[in-house]
Amino acid sequence: MIKVTIWNEFRHEVAQDRWGERCREHYPNGIHIALKQNLASEDLLIRTATLADPEQGLPDELLNDTDVLMWWGHVAHKEVSDALVDKIQNRVLGGMGLIVLHSGHKSKIFQRMTGCSCALHWREAGESERVWTIDPAHPICKGVPPYFVVERTEMYGEPFGIPEDAKPIFISWYQGGDVFRSGVTLQRGLGKIFYFSPGHETFPIYHDPNVLKVLSNAIRWAAPVMPIMADPLSCPNAVESPEPLPPYVF
Amino acid sequence: MIKVTIWNEFRHEVAQDRWGERCREHYPNGIHIALKQNLASEDLLIRTATLADPEQGLPDELLNDTDVLMWWGHVAHKEVSDALVDKIQNRVLGGMGLIVLHSGHKSKIFQRMTGCSCALHWREAGESERVWTIDPAHPICKGVPPYFVVERTEMYGEPFGIPEDAKPIFISWYQGGDVFRSGVTLQRGLGKIFYFSPGHETFPIYHDPNVLKVLSNAIRWAAPVMPIMADPLSCPNAVESPEPLPPYVF
Amino acid sequence: MIKVTIWNEFRHEVAQDRWGERCREHYPNGIHIALKQNLASEDLLIRTATLADPEQGLPDELLNDTDVLMWWGHVAHKEVSDALVDKIQNRVLGGMGLIVLHSGHKSKIFQRMTGCSCALHWREAGESERVWTIDPAHPICKGVPPYFVVERTEMYGEPFGIPEDAKPIFISWYQGGDVFRSGVTLQRGLGKIFYFSPGHETFPIYHDPNVLKVLSNAIRWAAPVMPIMADPLSCPNAVESPEPLPPYVF
Amino acid sequence: MIKVTIWNEFRHEVAQDRWGERCREHYPNGIHIALKQNLASEDLLIRTATLADPEQGLPDELLNDTDVLMWWGHVAHKEVSDALVDKIQNRVLGGMGLIVLHSGHKSKIFQRMTGCSCALHWREAGESERVWTIDPAHPICKGVPPYFVVERTEMYGEPFGIPEDAKPIFISWYQGGDVFRSGVTLQRGLGKIFYFSPGHETFPIYHDPNVLKVLSNAIRWAAPVMPIMADPLSCPNAVESPEPLPPYVF
Repeated sequence: MIKVTIWNEFRHEVAQDRWGERCREHYPNGIHIALKQNLASEDLLIRTATLADPEQGLPDELLNDTDVLMWWGHVAHKEVSDALVDKIQNRVLGGMGLIVLHSGHKSKIFQRMTGCSCALHWREAGESERVWTIDPAHPICKGVPPYFVVERTEMYGEPFGIPEDAKPIFISWYQGGDVFRSGVTLQRGLGKIFYFSPGHETFPIYHDPNVLKVLSNAIRWAAPVMPIMADPLSCPNAVESPEPLPPYVF
Repeated sequence: MIKVTIWNEFRHEVAQDRWGERCREHYPNGIHIALKQNLASEDLLIRTATLADPEQGLPDELLNDTDVLMWWGHVAHKEVSDALVDKIQNRVLGGMGLIVLHSGHKSKIFQRMTGCSCALHWREAGESERVWTIDPAHPICKGVPPYFVVERTEMYGEPFGIPEDAKPIFISWYQGGDVFRSGVTLQRGLGKIFYFSPGHETFPIYHDPNVLKVLSNAIRWAAPVMPIMADPLSCPNAVESPEPLPPYVF
Repeated sequence: MIKVTIWNEFRHEVAQDRWGERCREHYPNGIHIALKQNLASEDLLIRTATLADPEQGLPDELLNDTDVLMWWGHVAHKEVSDALVDKIQNRVLGGMGLIVLHSGHKSKIFQRMTGCSCALHWREAGESERVWTIDPAHPICKGVPPYFVVERTEMYGEPFGIPEDAKPIFISWYQGGDVFRSGVTLQRGLGKIFYFSPGHETFPIYHDPNVLKVLSNAIRWAAPVMPIMADPLSCPNAVESPEPLPPYVF
Repeated sequence: MIKVTIWNEFRHEVAQDRWGERCREHYPNGIHIALKQNLASEDLLIRTATLADPEQGLPDELLNDTDVLMWWGHVAHKEVSDALVDKIQNRVLGGMGLIVLHSGHKSKIFQRMTGCSCALHWREAGESERVWTIDPAHPICKGVPPYFVVERTEMYGEPFGIPEDAKPIFISWYQGGDVFRSGVTLQRGLGKIFYFSPGHETFPIYHDPNVLKVLSNAIRWAAPVMPIMADPLSCPNAVESPEPLPPYVF
C-alpha cells in the first residue's frame, strides 16, 4: 500500500470570478479531489490536503506518514511557510517521492529541491500540445503511447531552468512553435522527484487518460524502496576509523 | 580581469582559545587573507569579505561586481541571512561562479544550490589524505599531478549527499580507511560551482601548492563566459507565438 | 522468473599451471558454476556458457532467451567475435541487462557499450579493499552494509575511463593507497548495465556474502521491465506527419 | 591555431542523378569544401578529407595532426573500415574533438563513441524546423539567438537513442509535429563530442549563418585543452603502491 498525499493550494477553484467558474467546470471539488478520484487504486491510500487546512495541510503526523507527495500550487507559492518547505525537503531527502504538477515549477519546494530558477517562458492561448515519450523504457512510460495530444493547454517553453541531471522523459511540441521538457525525473538524497507540466486549472487535463497513466506510473516509480530516513541531514562524527590510526596530538 | 571575492565567516581565527591560536599559526590574518595572498595573480582582482562586515560582507555593489565567489564558513552558517542567500543564489543562476571550501558543504548557499543534505561523516584525527585526480582532462586539473598528499587533514567520508550531476573531479583516500569525492563540479543556471574539501582552519592546507593550483584553476574555470543575467528567475509571458495561432476564446 | 546467463571465458580455471591450481582451489568447476550455485534462487533461471561452447556460448536461441547476461572475461577478450559483440550490444539496447565483472572492464562488450577506454591502473599485491556504499538508496545496495572489506584483492585504481553518466554506487579504498569507483551503473538504450570490480580468479571473492548480495541485487535491478525490443537500431521513416504538411515538391 | 579536419564521404555531391544535381546546386564542390570556406578563420587551419582519398582520407599523419574532426557521412557508413574507426576512437579518447553532422548519427564513429543505437525516426518532407537554444550559457550558444528557423529541412524525431549524459543544447520543433534533441554534447575520455542534426545534402543549411555560428563555436569548444594522449587505452601496472604493503605471498 503506497500512501499518497495530494496537496493543492486550492485557490483557483474557489475564486468568485470567471476564472473560478472555469475551474469548477472541470474540478468542482478542486484539483486534488479530481486527482484522488481519477488515480484511485487498491494499492494506493490517497489523502488530500490544502493550504487552508491546519498547519497548511501537512502536520507532521501526515507528512511523516506519506510515501509520495503530489504538489499543485500556482498563485500562493509564497504563502507556504519556509518551515514547512524545510520539513518536506527533509522528508524527500529521506526517501519520500515528490511529484510536482504544472505551475508547481515555481513552488518553493521544487525550487528548493532543484536549486535552480525553474524559469521558463509561457503563453496562455488554448493551443494544442503533443507530448512525446522520449524514454520509452522508463517505468513512468509504461503503457504510454509514443505521443499523445492535449487539445488545449497552456504553453510552457524552453529554456527550462532545471539541473543538468533532470532527465527528460517527455518533450512537448506546441502548436504555437515552442518546445519543452515536459516530464523530467530527478533524485535528491533517497527521494525520487518527477515534474510533469501537462495540467491546468481551467482545462480538463487531469481527466485525460494519458496524463493519468503518467501520474499513476509516477506514483509507483517514486514510492520509496526502503524505510524513509528520519534525519538525512545528519553528519555523524566517525570517531573510530576502520583502519588503525596513531593517536591524534592536537 | 576576473573579479574574485573571498568570503570568510572569520570566527575561528579570532577566537580567544587554543583552537584560535592554532588557526592563527597558519592564518594570522584569516583564511581569506591567506587565500588572497596565495592566489594573487595579474589577471585576478581579489577582494575579501567577512560575516562581521556591513551587510554580512556582501552589499549589492560588491556582489553584483563579483565574477567568482569563494566561500569559507563553518560554525556560523546559520547566521548568514536567508535574504543574502537568495541574492547569492540569483547571482549564481545568472552566471557568477561559486567555489565552496571544506566545511562550506553545510553552508546555506551550498545546500541551496544543491537541494541536497550535503551530509557526510567526518573525523578529526590529523590523518593523511591522498587526493586522486580522476578527470585529468578537466581544466581544474591542469598541472595537478595524478595524486597529491595532504599530510594532516580532517576526514570527510562517503556517502556524500550531493546531486547526481555533481561530477567527481577528485576522489580522496584517507589513512583511516575512508573515501570521499573531494572535488566535484556542478552547473546551476548559468553559474558554475566547484566544491573542494581539502582545507581546514588548523592545518596549513591553504598554503599547499597543489591545493592552491586546484583553487587557482577553479577560479578561471568558474568565471562567467558571458554577461551575468540580472534576473534569471524571470518567466516571461511570450504572448506572441512564433507560429500563428487561432484567436484564444476563453 | 528472470532468465540469467553467466558467461565465462573459462581459461584460467583449466590452465595447467600454478595460476590454474590457485583458481581451482576456489572455483573447481569455473567461476560461472560457482556463481550459478551461489546466486541460485527460486525466481532465477540461471544458465551458464563458456567461450569454448558452440557459437562461443551464445547461440541466438540462448541470447534471445536471456534477460540478464553476466560477463566474466580476462585473457581471451580478443577471441570473442565482433559479430557476437554486435548481437549482445543489440540485445542490451533492446532491454537485456548486462553485469560486467572485474577484468571484464576490458571486454569488447563493455568497451562497446561505454565507447570509452575503460582504462585504469592496477596492482596484484594481495592487499585489502574496503568497498564503500555511496548510494544507499539504490536497489543494488539493499541489505549491503555501509562498507565491507575484501581481505585480499587485486587493486584497480583511478582514473577509470568510463562515461560521465556512469553513476558511482560503490567506491573502494585500497590498503596500498588507491581509490576506485568499484560499482557503477549505466543505461544504454533500454538496457541496464552494472560494472562491479570486486572479484578475481585466484581469490575467493565470489564466495563473499556481501559480493553475492550485490550481484544478486544487480540481477533483479537489471532485469528488463518490458518486452525486449527485437530491433533497437531501427530508424523508421515516419512518412505521415502528426500535423498536416503541404505537399513536398522536391 | 586549431587544426580542423572536415571529413566527407562525398558521394551525394558526385552522383549522376537528380539527387546529385540538387546537392551540387548548394555544394558544387562538396559539403566539405563549402564548410571549409564558410568556417574559414585566422585561428583555424582547416583541411578536408574524403572517403575516396588514400587511407579513406585519414592517414595517421593527418589524423594525428588533427585537433577537431568534423564528420559528414550518410550512404557509405559501412564502407569506413573498422580499423580506421578504432584509430579515430583512440584519438578522441586521447583528447581530439569530434563534431558529427546530421546523418552522421548512424556513422560507425558516432555509434562507437556512444555505444547506443543513435536511432530516431525521420521524414523527408521539406518542412520547417525551429531550433531552440536551451542552454544559453554553453560556449556553443554564444551569439546564437533564442531560436532560429531552418526553412526547409529533413525531420529527425524522438526518441533519439543516445546516452543519458548526452546533454541537450538545442531542441528542435518541426512543422510536422515532431521534436528532437538537435544539438547534444558528450565527453568520452579526454575528447569532447558534439552532435548537431540541422544540415542536409539537398538543402542549403550549411550556408545558414546561425548553423555556421553553432559549428564555429563548437570547433572552439571541442578543441583539446591539453596535449592529446597517444595511448588512452593503456592500463599500467602500478607495481609500487603509494602506501607500504607487506610482501605479496602468492
